[in-house]
Formats: sequence, C-alpha cells, structure tokens
Amino acid sequence: MSKRALISVTDKSRVVEFARELNSLGYEVISTGNTFKTLVENGVNSITIEDVTKFPEMLDGRVKTLNPYIHGGILYKRDEKSHIDTVNEYNIGSIDLVAVNLYDFEGTLKAGKNHEQMIENIDIGGPSMIRSAAKNYKDVTIVVDVDDYDMIIEKLKNNDLTLEDRKRLAYKAFSTTARYDALISTYFAEQVGDTYPEILNLTFQKEETLRYGENPHQNGILYTQPNAKNSILNYEQLNGKELSFNNINDLHGCLEVMREFKDSKEVVSVAIKHTNPCGVGIGKDSLEAYKKCYEADKVSIFGGIVGITSTVDAKTARMMNDIFLEIVVAYDYTDEALDILKEKKNLRILKLAKIEKSLQPYDMKYLDGKLLIQDRNNTLAQKCEVVTDVKPSESQLIDMEFGMRVVKNMKSNAIAIVKDGQTLALGCGQTSRIWALKNALENNKDKDFKGAVLASDAFFPFSDCVELAHEYGIDAIVQPGGSMKDQESIDACNKNQMTMVFTGIRHFKH
Amino acid sequence: MSKRALISVTDKSRVVEFARELNSLGYEVISTGNTFKTLVENGVNSITIEDVTKFPEMLDGRVKTLNPYIHGGILYKRDEKSHIDTVNEYNIGSIDLVAVNLYDFEGTLKAGKNHEQMIENIDIGGPSMIRSAAKNYKDVTIVVDVDDYDMIIEKLKNNDLTLEDRKRLAYKAFSTTARYDALISTYFAEQVGDTYPEILNLTFQKEETLRYGENPHQNGILYTQPNAKNSILNYEQLNGKELSFNNINDLHGCLEVMREFKDSKEVVSVAIKHTNPCGVGIGKDSLEAYKKCYEADKVSIFGGIVGITSTVDAKTARMMNDIFLEIVVAYDYTDEALDILKEKKNLRILKLAKIEKSLQPYDMKYLDGKLLIQDRNNTLAQKCEVVTDVKPSESQLIDMEFGMRVVKNMKSNAIAIVKDGQTLALGCGQTSRIWALKNALENNKDKDFKGAVLASDAFFPFSDCVELAHEYGIDAIVQPGGSMKDQESIDACNKNQMTMVFTGIRHFKH
Repeated sequence: MSKRALISVTDKSRVVEFARELNSLGYEVISTGNTFKTLVENGVNSITIEDVTKFPEMLDGRVKTLNPYIHGGILYKRDEKSHIDTVNEYNIGSIDLVAVNLYDFEGTLKAGKNHEQMIENIDIGGPSMIRSAAKNYKDVTIVVDVDDYDMIIEKLKNNDLTLEDRKRLAYKAFSTTARYDALISTYFAEQVGDTYPEILNLTFQKEETLRYGENPHQNGILYTQPNAKNSILNYEQLNGKELSFNNINDLHGCLEVMREFKDSKEVVSVAIKHTNPCGVGIGKDSLEAYKKCYEADKVSIFGGIVGITSTVDAKTARMMNDIFLEIVVAYDYTDEALDILKEKKNLRILKLAKIEKSLQPYDMKYLDGKLLIQDRNNTLAQKCEVVTDVKPSESQLIDMEFGMRVVKNMKSNAIAIVKDGQTLALGCGQTSRIWALKNALENNKDKDFKGAVLASDAFFPFSDCVELAHEYGIDAIVQPGGSMKDQESIDACNKNQMTMVFTGIRHFKH
Repeated sequence: MSKRALISVTDKSRVVEFARELNSLGYEVISTGNTFKTLVENGVNSITIEDVTKFPEMLDGRVKTLNPYIHGGILYKRDEKSHIDTVNEYNIGSIDLVAVNLYDFEGTLKAGKNHEQMIENIDIGGPSMIRSAAKNYKDVTIVVDVDDYDMIIEKLKNNDLTLEDRKRLAYKAFSTTARYDALISTYFAEQVGDTYPEILNLTFQKEETLRYGENPHQNGILYTQPNAKNSILNYEQLNGKELSFNNINDLHGCLEVMREFKDSKEVVSVAIKHTNPCGVGIGKDSLEAYKKCYEADKVSIFGGIVGITSTVDAKTARMMNDIFLEIVVAYDYTDEALDILKEKKNLRILKLAKIEKSLQPYDMKYLDGKLLIQDRNNTLAQKCEVVTDVKPSESQLIDMEFGMRVVKNMKSNAIAIVKDGQTLALGCGQTSRIWALKNALENNKDKDFKGAVLASDAFFPFSDCVELAHEYGIDAIVQPGGSMKDQESIDACNKNQMTMVFTGIRHFKH
C-alpha cells in the first residue's frame, strides 16, 4: 500500500514543490479545497478530501476534514493488530504525513478586522488534524512550518526521517496550536474586558538569542509577545553592536523615563546605569538637556545609556563622544550628528519609532514558577496638597513634578534631589530611607543644594529626612504622605520654613 | 425540533445532575462512552454518540466525535439559509450545548506517568468539540467547567442565557484549550530538551487577587505556573494576614538567599528589605544566627522579612518580637516559639515545605511586550585564584564564600563587607561601584572593619575601591576580576599587604 500525505494549507508558498516531491517519493496526495486547486493547476497529482471522506465539504468549509476517514487514517496505531483490523474493516486508508497551516488568525487580528471576520478566521479542522497527527507522531509526520519542507523531503529521500525527528515536529505542532489558541483567548479576553483572567496564557516568539544573560555564564534570549500592543522597545538601530541582555533591560528603563516626560514641551535627556537613572536634565534643546543630564553625575554615566526626547544635533553628539556610552537613543539625529556619533563604531545608536501612549496594561515579575502581575504604574499624583505654612513657589512646583517623575522610575527606597529641571543627587535601591537621602547628599558633596527640591518615592517614617535636607539647604519637599508620623515631618518643615507637598500616590518599584 | 446537548466528560462530577436538568429543560442528551454509561446508570435519558454519527467509536476511543454529524450539528449557522438547507439535506441534527472536559493530561503529568501514557492522555476529540462550539458561540453554549453547570441551568431555566454569556463561555473554552496545549508543548519541550523554544507558551492559573500591587493604586494578582517544577515559594502560613504583593516579592528574595545557603551545616538567618538583604548571619543555632543578622543592621530590618534555615526556638522568637517584622519564615518552629510569635496577630509566620534543589531552569523579565529570559544564576564561582602576594587565611576564605553568596543576591552594583559569618555593611543598587562601597562604609561608621572581607558582585574598574577598603582596615577582597585595570587593583592590594581572590564569575542582578 502506498503512503498518503494530507495537505491543507492557508499559506500556499512552496506547497506545489513540496507536494510534487511527495508525489515522486510515491506518496498519494490528498488535499482540501483551494490547496487542491493550486496543486492540480500546477500539475501535481492529488485526490480531494471528499474522495477520502465520501462526504461533501460543507457549511462554507466549516466542516471538511472532521471525519473518521481522515482522523482514523491518521490516528490508528500501525503496530496494533486491532487498530489495523478496524481500519481495514471500515476501509480507512492510512494517512502518513499531514501538512497543515492554519487560517491566519494573527494576520486578521493585525489587520484590524471586525469581530465576525475574527470568528471566521478561527480554524477548527486544521488544529484537529495537526493535533491528531502530532499525537500519533510515532507513525505520522506532522508538518506545520513551510520552512521544514526541504528538510523533510531530504530526509524522506534518504529514508532517515527518524522517530526523534517526528517527535520534534510533533513538539512544534503542539507549540503552534497552543500559540494559536493563546492568541484567540487573548482576543476574547480583550473582547470581554478581562485583564487578569483565571487562566493567563502568554505566548512569545523568539526574537534573538543574545550573547549571554545578565552575566556571561548565563544564556540569554529575547522574546516578543506577538499579541502585545506596540512595545515601548520599538526602535531602529542605526549603528553599533547588537544589544546585550543588560542593554535591553537598561534601555527599557531609559524609555520608561522618556515616556514619563512624553508630554513635556521641552527636551528631556536621561542617563541610565543598572536600570536606574543617574542623571536627568530638561532643556530648551538637546544640547542643554544633555549637558544638564551629564553634569548631574559625570561619573555614573560612564558606560551608560543616554536618551533624548528630541533630535540630537551635532554639538550634542560631539559632547556625547567625549565619554564612553553604550547606547544613545533619541527621536532623531541630524545627519551631521549621526556622522559624529558613528565615529564610535561600537556605539549603539537607536532611533525611536515613537513613544507609544497606549502600552500593555500590566507589568509582571516572574518568581520561580509564580507570576506577580499588576497594573502599570500610570498615575503620578492624586493631589497636590500643601501641608506646610510655607507655600511652594511656581518654580518649586515645577521641580516637584519633575522630581516625582524621576523618583517614580528609580528602585525603592529612592530620593531625588532636583533643581531647575536637573537632578542634583539621586539615592536609590536602599534598604533604609534615610540612607537613600544621606547617600545621595554625601555622593554629591561638591553640589550646592540651596533652593533644591527633594522628591521621595514613599512617605517619611520619621522627621530625620526633613532635618537632614534642611542641613543641606533644601527647602522644598514632595512626597506621597501617609505615615503615622506625618505630623512630625510637617512640624520639622514648619520649624525650618520649608514647604512640603503631599501627592497621595506612593511609587515603590523593586 | 427539540434542542440537543452533547456531553463528553472525563471528570464526571455533578454531570448526572446537570444532564438531568437538561433533560427537564427539554434537551435531548447525546453522550460518549463512559459518560453515557454514568448517565444511564443514574436514570438520565441519553442517546449515544453512535446514534448520531451512525459510525462506531473506534481505535480505543481515539476516534468517536470527529465526525461531520457532530461538528456539522455544532458549527452550522442558525441564521444562514444555506447552512440550514445543508444540515437538513444531510439529516444533521442541531447540537446546541456542548459540555466537555478533557483527558487529564495535567494530572497524568503530575502523577509522573510514562511517555506512552502521556501520549494516550492527549485528548483529540475533546478540544475539537470545544473549539467548534466556542467558534459558534453565537448559537451554541460551550461548557468546559463543572463550576458553570449551576449558572447555566439557572439561566436556561429563566431563559436568559445571553449572547454575552455564551461569549464568556467561549472565552473560557479557548483559554482551556490554549492552556491544555501549552502544557503539552512544554512537556514535549522537556522531552526533546529545548529550554528556550522558538515559540514559548506560558500558562498560569490565578492563585489569588492581592489587596493591591506594588502600590495601593495598582491592582495586583498572584498567578501559578501549573507545569513549573516546585516553586521556591512553597510554604505553609501559620499565622497572620495574607501576604501582599511586596511581601511575596520580598519573600522570594529571602528564599533565594536561604537557598544559597541550603547546603550549609550551620544555621543562616537573613533579613530582607525591598528585595535586598540588609543583614545575614551564620550561627550554630537559630538564636546566634538571628542575633548576628539583626545586629548587622538594626535599622533596615524594621518592617522587613526574616528567614531562618532551621527551627526557630523560644529565645529567638522572643528576640524577634522585640521589633516589627512583616514576615518570619523558617524550616520549623518549636511550639513555644510559635506561641510567642503568634502574640503578634498580624505577623505572617511561614513554615517552608523545603528549599528545593531543582527549580525552574530560567528566570525572566517582562519588559512591556518583550521578554528577557535567561538561565538562573546557579554558579557561585569558577575558580578561587589568589592574585596577591598575601594568601587568604582559612577563615578569610570562608568569609569570602559567605560574602560572595550574599552579594550575588543583592541588586547591582553591590558590595558586601562581612566578618565571621556576619554582614557588617552592605551597599547595593548603586549606579557607581565606589558609591556602593562608600555608602556601605559610611552607613556603618560605628563598626570595626578590621579583619573584614569585602565581596564585590563585579570587577573594580579602578583601584579606588581597594584603597578605600584599606583605609577602613579591610584586608581581604573577593571579586570576579576581569577588568582591564585589574593589575592596578592587585598592585594596590600588594602595596597594602591585602589579599585578593578572583572568582571568574560576575553576579550582576538588576
């Protein structure tokens, strides 16, 4: 008895060649509707699915392969006598190779089609055949990827398509159906407005195998979520080496800060080191912004990432070239600026597509088999409540907002001391709040903090931060408030003629 | 024409009652093999699947419902004349409700069955019916969850099972099939040894809706990965309020440090604040370990998590009660210790199942639609290379290993200064290395660093860290090495009669 191959593909690319090769290898080809038409028009021998099922394709193609003559032919065990007897008794012919790709649900989704079209593009017969063949991979070859056609033909020709090969193909098959239904269930989740479903199915596609992970002894891979809304990590690389694991992680931190200022009319420049901002500056143009960012901390920026929410000009590029940077990311570059930056062959120069407003609604932390998921922190402040006798000036209020936007993007406990749209001292990732402040101040002893604003990501448990800030000449504070001892901090401010604002929104970030 | 319900369930719980109610509502019940047997034995009227398909169940049940009389009856559009004409022409009866649950692949996996049994437990007919019915939810009700039986019967009785209801049921159906195939594809990935597949399908089940996320204005949810190996977050809660989002995140940090010391013959106590260790102590018993951990930093521990790799005794419990802790986690507690700790009603007391050796092979960071995934950092050191004239003493070597285990679990840049199995000063999350050291030292000015060991998570870019360490009386350093300027640091050590060891393994952690 000759072998039989069932072919039913939405993506017709290279299917003619594949089927023709199967013909030459002695396979009888069975094909469905349009696949049959394509094959026969191109001179490939094929019988129709109806020849096998003795039943018409019906309901606009909704039912064609869901038939015991198909699934029996796929699923029977070739080494089990009772199975062989059954297929013989019912005249069910063997199907030994199944090549299927599915209705393009993902493409339909990306094309923004209406709900009815989405539903029509949910393939039923395809996944059933794929899963049948994959289950019975011991006897059946399942092909879901056009890119596997050559390998399979080659191996069939040499008669060395092994059980292990078929197992790998079955693995790919189940990965494909899992992904397909993950996309469908995510589509439905959005339809019914369910952000945090009982069953959360996430599917990712490998984008790049990275040189290594956070450290050279760890493998690292970058995946993409195909059904995610536009990622913030959306850029064109104009120069330099490929991004590393840590580059991507740091870049994400950089873009989050840039996004924080996306509605600003001025230009913002941010420098990132180990995911934390080490300098942020606001200016009328890229040069002024970068200068303030650089001067905020001339040491930590070394080997860091710099982001600019504008077009980088030649002067800025020249100044950037004075130090070693891993990445420069900006909305755009003048031709001259690009030429200057490209003098450094390894410098990764990125042009942002745009800072998207609407992103994934959540972020998450994977903790060894558990997943903590939460709403993105999209709220800066709930209120602007002056709690002291002294009211903040207009410029202090502006710096308070600026400081809060910076400290929101630093690891807790975090303190940002800012003045005139520039960070003067940043303390982050501390296990004690007073240390975050103390370290920020002591690491920047050369600076003048007179007239600066202190922003804290969470409330002060004691009045010690206020007292220390006062010692350094800081006279304005912005913080969420909410401590049992708020009054002590307020009293300390009033005693020292300082102003303090409560925002009502904490910004822990770990 | 009366309505028809197709019932085919592996989990038979409450199916009799459900089918009987459907009978009373005028549904003709069609059922498969064992479901039919259960129903009829319990006096429910049902016809068999063969009555509908006019075809025998065959191949040990591999093919029974994959039949146009089933799928045609489910999939035809009730509002499309051509569809109605077709089903009438072929005498295909309508199927208006489908209740299916699947072969228990997950349970079979957990039971550790062999590969053949795993393959047999891949359901083919079930997912096909579920997907057909879900696609045609406009006309068909799909029931995949036993817990939905009551709601559906209630709504059918009141004639108010709406299109929106059926859409939600379809959503649940596709979530179920997506999860099912994600489990299968993950099983195959393990079978073929593919840690980082082209298509990565992750499925999670909601475990708990938390009070909020990292901050009160963010929703937070905890999910579990059902196909993950035992999570390190595996504990029994003996007292206190439910864990918060930040508690779980911090607890994970605590358990990772405890796991770092799982092979230690002594007891280790660790205090965690904002995911970073703030104190670690090793002792002969829980009291000594905790005392050293507490005394390492009496301030940051406030409101933190304490872990003990042993049984907590009464004396330790009494000492713990002197301060405010969020969580105590230990291998066990004496009855007396537990009573003492329980005096604090809100204190979360956790008993660890055990610290698993074999965990998920990877960790990951979700970055707004992208996923960075990497091998877990399971390597402490590659070598123990003495690079200085002075060799380390035995006790310095022990502290070097201790310090490296601590600093490995701190956010970069990180420095740990330790002595006699106790952390003296920790600097973490800094954007500059010298700051991590400087801050650690300055935050602990009262301490005597003579004879202490300094551990660094990454190499020194300059010799400034060595010089500063020397000023404070530190005379031993352990670090990965690998800087272009290593020699400067080595020279500085030799000049100051210090010893230094290179490990060859960097421990960045962000």
